[in-house]
Amino acid sequence: MPESRGIGPIDVTHSPFAALQAQAVELREGFWRTRQQLNVGVGLPHGYRKLEESGNFHNLALAAGQIQGQYKGPLFIDSDLYKWLEGVIFTLQAAPDPQLAAMAERAIELIMAAQAPDGYLNTFYQVVEPQNRWKNIHSGHELYCAGHLMQAAVAHVRATGDERLLGVACRFADHIGTIFGPGRLETCCGHPEIETALIELYRLTRRQSYLDMAAYFIDMRGKRTVVSDYGILAYYQDQTPVREATAVVGHAVRQLYLCAGVTDLFLETGEVALLDSQKRLWGDMTTSKMYVTGGVGSRPTTEGFGEKYELPTDTAYCETCAAIASIFWSYRMLLATAESRFADLMESTLYNAFLAGVSLGHDRYFYVNPVLSRGGIERPEWHGCSCCPPNVMRLLASLQHYLCTTSREGIQCHQYAAAKRDTRFASLVLDTVYPWQGICTFRVERTQGAPWELSLRIPGWCTRASLTVNGQAMALTMRRGYAVIMRAWHPGDTVELNLLMEPRLVAGHPNIESVRHCAAITRGPLVYCIEQADLDGATPLLDVRLDGAAPLEAVARPELLGGITMIGAMGRVIDGAAWQERLYQPLAPPTMLRGVRLSAVPYYAWANRSVGAMRVWIPLV
Amino acid sequence: MPESRGIGPIDVTHSPFAALQAQAVELREGFWRTRQQLNVGVGLPHGYRKLEESGNFHNLALAAGQIQGQYKGPLFIDSDLYKWLEGVIFTLQAAPDPQLAAMAERAIELIMAAQAPDGYLNTFYQVVEPQNRWKNIHSGHELYCAGHLMQAAVAHVRATGDERLLGVACRFADHIGTIFGPGRLETCCGHPEIETALIELYRLTRRQSYLDMAAYFIDMRGKRTVVSDYGILAYYQDQTPVREATAVVGHAVRQLYLCAGVTDLFLETGEVALLDSQKRLWGDMTTSKMYVTGGVGSRPTTEGFGEKYELPTDTAYCETCAAIASIFWSYRMLLATAESRFADLMESTLYNAFLAGVSLGHDRYFYVNPVLSRGGIERPEWHGCSCCPPNVMRLLASLQHYLCTTSREGIQCHQYAAAKRDTRFASLVLDTVYPWQGICTFRVERTQGAPWELSLRIPGWCTRASLTVNGQAMALTMRRGYAVIMRAWHPGDTVELNLLMEPRLVAGHPNIESVRHCAAITRGPLVYCIEQADLDGATPLLDVRLDGAAPLEAVARPELLGGITMIGAMGRVIDGAAWQERLYQPLAPPTMLRGVRLSAVPYYAWANRSVGAMRVWIPLV
Repeated sequence: MPESRGIGPIDVTHSPFAALQAQAVELREGFWRTRQQLNVGVGLPHGYRKLEESGNFHNLALAAGQIQGQYKGPLFIDSDLYKWLEGVIFTLQAAPDPQLAAMAERAIELIMAAQAPDGYLNTFYQVVEPQNRWKNIHSGHELYCAGHLMQAAVAHVRATGDERLLGVACRFADHIGTIFGPGRLETCCGHPEIETALIELYRLTRRQSYLDMAAYFIDMRGKRTVVSDYGILAYYQDQTPVREATAVVGHAVRQLYLCAGVTDLFLETGEVALLDSQKRLWGDMTTSKMYVTGGVGSRPTTEGFGEKYELPTDTAYCETCAAIASIFWSYRMLLATAESRFADLMESTLYNAFLAGVSLGHDRYFYVNPVLSRGGIERPEWHGCSCCPPNVMRLLASLQHYLCTTSREGIQCHQYAAAKRDTRFASLVLDTVYPWQGICTFRVERTQGAPWELSLRIPGWCTRASLTVNGQAMALTMRRGYAVIMRAWHPGDTVELNLLMEPRLVAGHPNIESVRHCAAITRGPLVYCIEQADLDGATPLLDVRLDGAAPLEAVARPELLGGITMIGAMGRVIDGAAWQERLYQPLAPPTMLRGVRLSAVPYYAWANRSVGAMRVWIPLV
Repeated sequence: MPESRGIGPIDVTHSPFAALQAQAVELREGFWRTRQQLNVGVGLPHGYRKLEESGNFHNLALAAGQIQGQYKGPLFIDSDLYKWLEGVIFTLQAAPDPQLAAMAERAIELIMAAQAPDGYLNTFYQVVEPQNRWKNIHSGHELYCAGHLMQAAVAHVRATGDERLLGVACRFADHIGTIFGPGRLETCCGHPEIETALIELYRLTRRQSYLDMAAYFIDMRGKRTVVSDYGILAYYQDQTPVREATAVVGHAVRQLYLCAGVTDLFLETGEVALLDSQKRLWGDMTTSKMYVTGGVGSRPTTEGFGEKYELPTDTAYCETCAAIASIFWSYRMLLATAESRFADLMESTLYNAFLAGVSLGHDRYFYVNPVLSRGGIERPEWHGCSCCPPNVMRLLASLQHYLCTTSREGIQCHQYAAAKRDTRFASLVLDTVYPWQGICTFRVERTQGAPWELSLRIPGWCTRASLTVNGQAMALTMRRGYAVIMRAWHPGDTVELNLLMEPRLVAGHPNIESVRHCAAITRGPLVYCIEQADLDGATPLLDVRLDGAAPLEAVARPELLGGITMIGAMGRVIDGAAWQERLYQPLAPPTMLRGVRLSAVPYYAWANRSVGAMRVWIPLV
């Protein structure tokens, strides 16, 4: 079956899978379409106004010589606009939107006008410190911003065929090639990002120089060329050569963007040492340095990873960008390995650590995502360092990209968002109210008679899954975490996947100090929390204890928080007043007072009703 | 009874007590004399060598124009030398030491030579940035260093009568008076210290201008004149006027040095609003922001206080200087209120958070004092920012200062170190092996027949105390936490105080996330910990659980760690391997394996045998 231009898969050399372009998938009525529509209707226009207020357009106009004035904001501010623009571009491929198109056009024209004749583009160094171009590689963010420009340019071509931004990006990339490399400037950027971006640019243009440049920047890691003003090479990802790395360290976003780049390099070169290192790092992160929400980064000092099991609830950092970076990385690991555990983590991070980063109204954004609030925490509209909000916008706009892949054998469904998926094997429509219920109904709409495989991920959280094809029960044939159905398909065929979705209590590893004798409530991919908003005023949230033996009850609450399934639980209230005067007392069992009914809401929905206390981990009775 | 010069009490205007000078007290064979002798024999000479290596003497010689070269170290480095010198000075009053005297003489002569003709003295701003004198008040540390110079000068006069340093300090103080004040530079230092120092200078010189200057700097707090490059006025103690403060906030050492200064101001002015504010802050700290060791500072980012109950074990900061500052403040609160709770906290902080800051060999020093180590932590010999080691040295050298006070009615014993105390009422000798046993035997050696009161602190940790006078049991007459014995004393009278000292388990406030379902072992004033060094290699410390119902046993171990009482306890080992692959699992009781005998050692003695794991809070079975 011939591919129509623009919706063909993206070939990744050393993957059994081909990535689907976003426009090959059309979201249908369901959880994620609702959020994506809010992103289009509220988030992206909100972002435009905030970029305007923050000086993004102003700085570009300064660099273009169109106006005179003072530069505004931090030196990496261009990247915010590039990420927002990428979000708009993905949106425009799905449906026309004249207002967003005009906003994007303004941005694109300014970017083109601002680029220096030699290809250089960075408003801070063009306007404020032209004498310091490429002088402050460790914290100047020039290559970082360049990477985000490249990603927007690649999206632009894939989504619309428009090559104007690509021209800017390639000229800049070519200029960078004249600056960095053996015998020239021999170092790497203090904030990884350009590595994965150059490889994406390579996949689109097939210019070997971009792949080589990405490889060069990756190989420079660990040569300790980055002068560290934090005193920590790990922070800048320059402590260890990537092939020797055994642990995720330093600034979380830097580490995970680098991981995405290294995995991309494996995907194009097939060098096993690269993939092996990434498996080690992914194992280190997921078995010792990750919050239950999928959030990462436990040290505010470095916005970074701590020691193994150093996961305090008090000061969890869990930057929204780190969740996004983790999703990018796990997606590439999924392409590299075809193993479901990577899609599992993408799912968990999407529904929890990532989605909590944006308010239900899509006009407020967290940078730091606590798993415990003693009260007073709310999402700001924008940030002084506002990397997260536009990153949320571009991921929401490009969610289609991550739902499924194709291979020589067939179609793999990784994420269960209601959508129509157009592939060369078939049009496949998934109808589901996931994550509220675990029933996923697939209908094959267009296919030929040749047999192909449909692979359906059985999530790690699921203890019982069943399948029917055209109403007939089928045993599950599992491969790398996927139930594989191989048959000759016909239009109208239906597959029903039923994932048992029960509320469940989970415990943390005993070496995690902060969650000892606690449980978190989960259901399906969702992590829940309890909020003061669901307790009466006489019951301080922090005095609540959970009865781990009492049954949990899932209750649909369509009217609440945009429509959720709430989990009811039973607890007790301790006598907090007994501790008023003393911080430490002789050991004695806590005094339990009355029982209390608890109502847990999805973690992503917290802080949308009040600034009261919240906790993910609930101490047990 | 006439006072001999140099050992008379220090009058503090609004205190019922007079502070004893250090030379009025002679430490005798016992816990603290051992440590003080190591401070003299090892610590202070080690400090001299490290100050030399770090450039302290070099910088002074540069400022004095005696040599040419590059300034070395951070801009506040002078303060390290001043604190070390204060320690040497206290040492020299107790016993001659030609080697230390020569070291001190070199320092004093260089300080005198380095002072600018106008009285200014700060080697960084004299050598490196003369154009920036008083330009960077929030983080330049000029007034901070001046304060440490003043404290050394005051100690110098009190200990030896030598007024050379005092001359330097007063000239500098007078110069500062020409720079700061209404209509001149109207601000305060980003690092409090000069406030308490100026009041000590006032107490010695009785020059009103020094008290007024201290009051001015204190009154400027909260006027938000300090430009914050951390974005947080609280960090620099400039967020709230001191009389309105309700919570300890920001950088812990800055907060507590300021508290010492504010309490000093109350002690001289009697302004009740000042004392009220300090009682509020002390309550806030001790009921919600203090580790069980007395350590404070839970946020590495700011070296500062967190929210109420934000006391993660993973990242406890507990800077040694903050413990010292806490002791300084509580001492002044004791003078202001005569309430034993302040001496209780001094004791707990001295034996735990403070003393852990120095190795048993006195040649290694912690800056950060963890309450949990997963391994790999040891005391360095010195630090890039080395405020803590000389601060330890000066406090150890001046411990005599804090043991007792006198009042119109008699003598108050606050700390039970074996010592001879010379006061106008009597010479009082305490013989004790405290803190290993709770028996304190006092002998009156010189007294007249007029009745006076002997007040003995009954520590807050003590559940049963008894007294005998000349062998006769006496009921305890309590006043503000002190047992008061009023009688006509005669030479040879003996008092035996018996403080029941049993091992005990304590629990933390339920709102402290990190210590839930844990206990800490304590005995008397000592907090204990368990170390990997006391477990066999097949038993990882982090897999150990404590049986909270099993008896604890105190065992004298004179051969171990300089002589300690160890606490034996019973525990179980959990199956850590069951968690190898998963960070989060469905809730289930942990699998307990074999029983294990546990041996707890005093927290102050940790990290003197190996770099293995350590924990203060032990999870319960």
